[in-house]
Amino acid sequence: MAVGFPPAMGLTVVGSIAFDAVKTPFGERERMLGGSAVHFALAASFFAEVRVVGPVGDDFGEAEYAVLRERGVNVDDIERVEGGKTFFWAGEYHWDLNSRDTLDTQLGVFADFDPKLSPAAQGAETLFLANIQPDLQRRVRALCGEARLVGLDSMNLWIETAREALLHAIAEVDFVFMNDAELRQLTGQPNLVRSAREVLALGPRAVVAKQGEYGAALFTPEGFFALPAYPLETVVDPTGAGDSFAGGFLGYLAAQGADAQVDERMLRRAMTYGSVLASFNVEEFGTERVQRLTPEEIDARFEEFRSMTSFEAVESA
Amino acid sequence: MAVGFPPAMGLTVVGSIAFDAVKTPFGERERMLGGSAVHFALAASFFAEVRVVGPVGDDFGEAEYAVLRERGVNVDDIERVEGGKTFFWAGEYHWDLNSRDTLDTQLGVFADFDPKLSPAAQGAETLFLANIQPDLQRRVRALCGEARLVGLDSMNLWIETAREALLHAIAEVDFVFMNDAELRQLTGQPNLVRSAREVLALGPRAVVAKQGEYGAALFTPEGFFALPAYPLETVVDPTGAGDSFAGGFLGYLAAQGADAQVDERMLRRAMTYGSVLASFNVEEFGTERVQRLTPEEIDARFEEFRSMTSFEAVESA
Repeated sequence: MAVGFPPAMGLTVVGSIAFDAVKTPFGERERMLGGSAVHFALAASFFAEVRVVGPVGDDFGEAEYAVLRERGVNVDDIERVEGGKTFFWAGEYHWDLNSRDTLDTQLGVFADFDPKLSPAAQGAETLFLANIQPDLQRRVRALCGEARLVGLDSMNLWIETAREALLHAIAEVDFVFMNDAELRQLTGQPNLVRSAREVLALGPRAVVAKQGEYGAALFTPEGFFALPAYPLETVVDPTGAGDSFAGGFLGYLAAQGADAQVDERMLRRAMTYGSVLASFNVEEFGTERVQRLTPEEIDARFEEFRSMTSFEAVESA
Repeated sequence: MAVGFPPAMGLTVVGSIAFDAVKTPFGERERMLGGSAVHFALAASFFAEVRVVGPVGDDFGEAEYAVLRERGVNVDDIERVEGGKTFFWAGEYHWDLNSRDTLDTQLGVFADFDPKLSPAAQGAETLFLANIQPDLQRRVRALCGEARLVGLDSMNLWIETAREALLHAIAEVDFVFMNDAELRQLTGQPNLVRSAREVLALGPRAVVAKQGEYGAALFTPEGFFALPAYPLETVVDPTGAGDSFAGGFLGYLAAQGADAQVDERMLRRAMTYGSVLASFNVEEFGTERVQRLTPEEIDARFEEFRSMTSFEAVESA
């Protein structure tokens, strides 16, 4: 599946490319490849031809490019800033991995990020606006005139500092991927269902509430669907799970081609591929597990999801 | 469905009968019928003939008995302590209803509760040991020699003060219903899957991890199943949701009769009836919603659960 996608499958992601230092109860890494655009791109690369747009410093080396290239990700739109430093994030997860402390953030070249997209990147049918400043998201959205499947992520920082811009950005996309707590914060609605409905009313065709270890819920004007997280006995590093989810979700949709009707059934399958990719992502540190993931493993876990959520199925893995 | 169950459907519940004072963002009640045995019994009453075992004071009046009787619940084993006061609990839920403060607890007659079961109560095929001291749970379990479907709930208090007794009690039942945080606390395992597997290894045939607004997960030696909570736009009062869940779950199993094989499929349906009853319970204060619930409403919501969790279904309510 990894090579030779038809042109309709073009998928552009704009977001952070980073070095992460992560400590969890299961170990630590002092410096590994990370960032929202990277996690998204690797996950989506199993379904579509992905272009990454984002800045790196001159500390970003061949080994890092190689991780992306080996998954067939197009790195031509990665902007290398000479003399600059790549975005660095350090965090530590607590006992049950459901909360974390940020220990260090060095924005580096990300501080002055002004997205530039090649014509090829602008021509993508599918676009993911990873968690960056909402005005930048809107600018990128406007550049990609042919994108008909556009997703967006955000975070508490932008809800607090750029709420109006974020509301405008949401109105211009098709899919919103946010944590349930962020949806509540954005709308001031303690009830998740009402909160998601308020966000839907802004314009997107679906809202995905990410719920960490509890899975994810899909809200559309027509319905509701929810999937548990895959029941892993060991979660090593949750970093990037949300972006991997979005990568599986939008990658799958991109792969259906321009003529496919994005209906409820297709969205439920997208939710499942998102959950599958997120579940692999957290099995090891950073990108380690997804780097050696295979399409066969993805298919097998997809079927496990079907069996573990079906009323009728009696078999499970 | 409410009358004339065959004898095989006998279900005994032992637990608290209470007056609750509850304050939520949606209003408050100063004194209403509550308690784990009451919430369980009302939910289970749609499926089986239920007997309630528990103590009340002489402040427990005809109006309270009537709520149970109107749902066909047998109240002959309710022990009325003259001069005593019924258990009283007061609590306040926070903004998003996911956490609460206990404002007052007056044990009253519950402090010296020493369960006495009539021969009919002891002869039940199905037994629910609601959240009481684990040694009392074991004593009741031993009295009910014919029970072949036995469920148990517990709480952080007993994990902290009577852990060994609780582990013994768990070993003697078929189904454990606990919050995910309690399963983690009991086992010292931050990972829910490992934690549930450790509890399974003690003997029960299934562990149900209750996850509040996220739904519930079922762990068996053979598999894993999870259901989201029903997506309500307004949750008025979560009190009793867990006991209503257990009531729907065990009530459904009890109704399958003594010869039914409790397999994975049946357990998944039990999970769904549990989720259905819990979802109605939280729609209004205390027992208000379940008192006027109908079998038709239960069936309709069961089908909604099927549709909102199916990969293939495209319709939802």
